[in-house]
Amino acid sequence: MRLLLLISLLFTFTVSWFYGRDAPDRWSVGGVWPLPQKIIYGSKNRTLTYDKIGIDLGDKKDCDILLSMADNYMNKWLFPFPVELKTGDTDDFIITVTVKEECPAGPPVHGASEEYLLRVSLTEAVINAQTVWGALRAMESLSHLVFYNQKSQEYQIRTVEIYDKPRFPVRGIMIDSSRHFLSVNVIKRQLEIMSMNKLNVLHWHLVDSESFPYTSEKFPELHGVGAYTPRHVYSRQDIADVIAFARLRGIRVIPEFDLPGHTSSWRGRKGFLTECFDEKGEETNLPNLVDPMNEANFDFIAEFLEEVTETFPDQFLHLGGDEVSDYIVECWVRNKKIRKFMEEKGFGNDTILLENYFFDKLYKIVEKFRLKRKPIFWQEVFDNNIPDPNSIIHIWKGNTHEEIYEQIKNITSKSLPVIVSACWYLNYIKYGADWRDEIRGTAPSNSRYYYCDPTNFNGTDAQKELVLGGIAAIWGELVDNTNIEARLWPRASAAAERLWSPAEKTQRAEDAWPRMHELRCRLVSRGYRIQPNNNPDFCTFEFEEPPARKSEL
Amino acid sequence: MRLLLLISLLFTFTVSWFYGRDAPDRWSVGGVWPLPQKIIYGSKNRTLTYDKIGIDLGDKKDCDILLSMADNYMNKWLFPFPVELKTGDTDDFIITVTVKEECPAGPPVHGASEEYLLRVSLTEAVINAQTVWGALRAMESLSHLVFYNQKSQEYQIRTVEIYDKPRFPVRGIMIDSSRHFLSVNVIKRQLEIMSMNKLNVLHWHLVDSESFPYTSEKFPELHGVGAYTPRHVYSRQDIADVIAFARLRGIRVIPEFDLPGHTSSWRGRKGFLTECFDEKGEETNLPNLVDPMNEANFDFIAEFLEEVTETFPDQFLHLGGDEVSDYIVECWVRNKKIRKFMEEKGFGNDTILLENYFFDKLYKIVEKFRLKRKPIFWQEVFDNNIPDPNSIIHIWKGNTHEEIYEQIKNITSKSLPVIVSACWYLNYIKYGADWRDEIRGTAPSNSRYYYCDPTNFNGTDAQKELVLGGIAAIWGELVDNTNIEARLWPRASAAAERLWSPAEKTQRAEDAWPRMHELRCRLVSRGYRIQPNNNPDFCTFEFEEPPARKSEL
Repeated sequence: MRLLLLISLLFTFTVSWFYGRDAPDRWSVGGVWPLPQKIIYGSKNRTLTYDKIGIDLGDKKDCDILLSMADNYMNKWLFPFPVELKTGDTDDFIITVTVKEECPAGPPVHGASEEYLLRVSLTEAVINAQTVWGALRAMESLSHLVFYNQKSQEYQIRTVEIYDKPRFPVRGIMIDSSRHFLSVNVIKRQLEIMSMNKLNVLHWHLVDSESFPYTSEKFPELHGVGAYTPRHVYSRQDIADVIAFARLRGIRVIPEFDLPGHTSSWRGRKGFLTECFDEKGEETNLPNLVDPMNEANFDFIAEFLEEVTETFPDQFLHLGGDEVSDYIVECWVRNKKIRKFMEEKGFGNDTILLENYFFDKLYKIVEKFRLKRKPIFWQEVFDNNIPDPNSIIHIWKGNTHEEIYEQIKNITSKSLPVIVSACWYLNYIKYGADWRDEIRGTAPSNSRYYYCDPTNFNGTDAQKELVLGGIAAIWGELVDNTNIEARLWPRASAAAERLWSPAEKTQRAEDAWPRMHELRCRLVSRGYRIQPNNNPDFCTFEFEEPPARKSEL
Repeated sequence: MRLLLLISLLFTFTVSWFYGRDAPDRWSVGGVWPLPQKIIYGSKNRTLTYDKIGIDLGDKKDCDILLSMADNYMNKWLFPFPVELKTGDTDDFIITVTVKEECPAGPPVHGASEEYLLRVSLTEAVINAQTVWGALRAMESLSHLVFYNQKSQEYQIRTVEIYDKPRFPVRGIMIDSSRHFLSVNVIKRQLEIMSMNKLNVLHWHLVDSESFPYTSEKFPELHGVGAYTPRHVYSRQDIADVIAFARLRGIRVIPEFDLPGHTSSWRGRKGFLTECFDEKGEETNLPNLVDPMNEANFDFIAEFLEEVTETFPDQFLHLGGDEVSDYIVECWVRNKKIRKFMEEKGFGNDTILLENYFFDKLYKIVEKFRLKRKPIFWQEVFDNNIPDPNSIIHIWKGNTHEEIYEQIKNITSKSLPVIVSACWYLNYIKYGADWRDEIRGTAPSNSRYYYCDPTNFNGTDAQKELVLGGIAAIWGELVDNTNIEARLWPRASAAAERLWSPAEKTQRAEDAWPRMHELRCRLVSRGYRIQPNNNPDFCTFEFEEPPARKSEL
C-alpha cells in the first residue's frame, strides 16, 4: 500500500516529462474526429453519471435507426473505459434528438444530408438534424466529447456548440473478400469503426480471380465452383445482414462485380471465359477474361446483375473494368477464335475495339437499370476505352499526390464524376507513421495519407463538384480476418478526416495528431484493434486481447 | 438442402483448380514445423477419437511441466478444429512419454537437451527424451501430425518415426515493452506460439529511453518515475508469472537492461544520468547516458543487478551497450564536467576511452555474478569498445545477409560467441511475402528471413560452434497489444525453422511453404492471429475474431 502511494505521488511529477514519444499534455481531451466544420468549446465540463443520462428521440421514438443508435451509445460507446461507473450525485442529463425527415426504410441514398447541430451545455445535450444520418454523426461527435477525468475519477463531457456536415458525399473503405475471405463478424467490426470515423460507404469488392464468395440464387454454379470452399461464402442472409448492419450506422454498401477481367472465379458458368494460351500456344490454366463472342454471356450478365440489384439496394454499382490489358495477350490476342471474331467485326488487330465492344454491350445492360443504378468503373475504362457518359470513374493509379490530382483534373474536365482511391492504398504497408510521413514503398499512394486532398487541382468549380470523395482500399492479397483491423485503423482515419473536414483546417498532420491519438485510445477502449501509428506512446487504457476462441468457419 | 448438395458436388471438381493462389493439394498434411532432423512417414494414418486417447507419463507423473503439457495438448492443441468431436469406435491410443532426467525445478538452462525420439504407429505413440524439454518438443511435433480429414470427417494422425534435436541452442524472440507496453496476457500468447514453433528464448527488452515498466523492489523510484503510468508496469508477480509460464513451455526468459545509453527512463534515480546540451549549450530535456563520474552509480547498478539476478533465473543477462555514440555529443562531449573528468583521467578528447572506462566498471560488477550470469552485449561493445572476454555479442547491424555473415565471422574469429538478430528485424514491415521474397525496405535484415543461415560464412568449426543461434526482434516503436501477434507470426516461424532444422534440408522457401501453410492454419485454429504471408489463399477453418472486450488496463 505504501508502495502504491509512492508511485502515485511520483507519477504526478512525471506527466510533463517525456522522451522520444508523444506527451499526454499534447493529447486532446474531448477532441472530435473528424474535425467538425465549426466547433466552439465552452469553458466548463459536466460530470456524467451512468444512471442520470437519458435520451429523448422526440417524435422518432419508433425509428429503428435511432433506437439502435440510442442502444449502442447509451449502453456501450459513451462509457467505454474500464473504470467503475459512478451513479447518482448529479442532475439528469438528457440528450434530445430532433430529426426533421421521416425515418427511412432503406440505407442512406447518395448525397443524403448528414448535417447536424450539436449543443452540449452543463444541463443537457441537444441534437438537431435533417436526417437520421445527421443524428448518427452528431451522436458520434457527442461521444468524442466524453472523457475520463483521471484526477476526479469520473466521466465528464465537454460543453460545446458544433455545426457540422461532410465535405464529400462519398467517404469509404474498400474491402476485398476474394483474395482472402473475410467473415461477416469481421466486416461488421469494420462497419462499426467506420461509423466511428463518420465514413458512409462500404465498397465491397466481393469477387475476383481467386474466389467467388457471393452466393447467387439464380446461378449457384458460380459460388459452387468459384468459392474457396463451401464454407467460404456469404449466404443471402449474410449479405442482407451486412447491409442492414451498415444501414443502422449510416453506411451504404456498394458491391463490385469486376468485368470483363479478374473473372476466372466465374468459371462455374460454362462458356463465360475465353480460352487463354501461353507463348507456345498451349492452353493455360488461367482464363481470366469474359468471352465477348458468346451472346449468351450478355444475357447471363443482365440476369446476374438483375439479381445483384435486387440484393444490394444502393444506387451505385461497381462493375470494375480494371487491368483488362493484363490478360489481353494470353486470352484474346493468342486466341484464334477471338482473332477471327475481331476480323469479322472489322476490329482488325485492335483489341481496344473489342474491349469497347464489350463495354458497349455492358452499358446497354446497365441502361436497363439506369434509373436504379449508376455504374462505377475503374479508371482504365476512361484511360483506354470510352466510358458510359453516365458512369463514375474510380481512380487507383498514380505514384504521387500530384499525379493523382492531374488525373482527377483530366477526368473531371470531361464532365465525369470521380471517386479517388489512389491516395489511400492501405494494404501497401510501410514501416513508420505512413499516414503522416513520406516513406518510400509500393505505389500507388505511397504514404502521407493525411495530405491527399482530392480537389487540390487547378480546375473549375464545376470540376471540383464532380469529385464525389474517396475510398481507402485494403486489397486482400495479404489481408484476412487476422490482420485487417489493425492494418486499416487508424491509417484509414486519416482519409476519413480529409474527406469530412474543411480542407483549410486539416492541412497539418501535427495538428491532427492530438485528436487522432485520443480517437485511437477511445476506440481501443471500445474493444477495437487500433494500432499505434506514431512514435512510442501509450493509451491510458490499453487494448487487451480477448481470450482466444477456436476458429469458427 | 438441394443447394447445399449441389455445392458439395461441385466442390469436388474444383479443388485441383486454382488461379493466382496456392492450391490445397500443395499444402502438407501432418507436416511438422520446424522440419525435424529425421522424419520417416508411415503409409497409413490412424483415426483419433477424443475419448480413446490417453497419455502415460511413466515415472514422471508428478512433474508439473509434463502435467501442464498433458493438459494443454490433450484438452486443447491436439483437437483444435471447430468440428464435432467423435467418440468411440476405435481402440485406445496411448501416448507414452519416457523422460530420463529428473523434472527440473527451474527453467531450461543454456544448452539443455531438447533431443527426442517420436514413434507413432497405428496403435500408439511413443516419446523418448533425455529431458522434459525434449518431451515438450516431441509433443508439439506429435500435434502437427494430427489433421482433420475432410472426406471421412474425422481426426487422423500420421504414422511416423522422428529423430530430432535443435541445430542451435538459442532460438528466440525479442520483445520491447518500453516503447509500447505489452500486457502479460499478450506476452503469454507469444510464449505459447513460440513453443508451437519450438523456440526456447524470450529476450525481454524490458526498459528503454521511453519507459521503465520493470518494478524494482529496492528502487521503486525507477518505475515510479519512469513508467508511462502506474498502470503500465510489470509487478513482481507479473514477472514471476511470465517466467513460470515460459518454463512450462521450455522457454528461458533473458532480461535486458540496456546501459549506459537508452537510459532516460531511469531518471527516477537522482544523479544517474549526465546533463546533456544542445548546439547552443542549452541543457536539453533528453538525458540518455549514465553519468560515469558518479561512483555511486556503479554501486547502484551493482545493487540493481543483484535484484535482477534474483528476479530472473536465467544464466544470461543482457546489458545492452548499443547506440552509445548517438548520445555522446550531447551528453558527454558538450558536458563541461565530463570533459574535465576525462582530462583528469587522461582520456583527452577520446570519448571511446570514457566508454571503455564505463564498461570496465560494468564488467567488474558482472564479475560479482560471474558464476551465475553470462553477459550479452549488443555489437557496438565489440565494434567500438573492448568487450568482456566472457561476454556474448549480439549482432543487429547489416544491410544484407552477406554483411551479417561477415560480422559473425569477424566476431567469432576473436573467440567470442554470437547471437544473431540482424537477419530478423520483424518490426520493419514490408509489403509482400517478406519471409521469402526480396523486398526493399528498412534495413537491417531487409527481407528473405527464411534464407538467413548464421553459420554460412567461411570459418573454422570452432568459430561455427560459437554461433549460439538467433533472436527475431520485434521492436516496439509501432507495435503494441493490438498488432504484435499478427506482425510476428508466421514471419518469425521462418527464423524458427532455420534455427532448429538441418541447413541442408531448409534451403528453399518453396519447399517450406506447404508446411508453413499448414502451421499457420493449425495455429489459427488454436485461436492465434497468424497472418497470411503468401499470395491469396485460405485456411479450411479461418481465424475468427473473438467478441470485443473493453480494454483492461
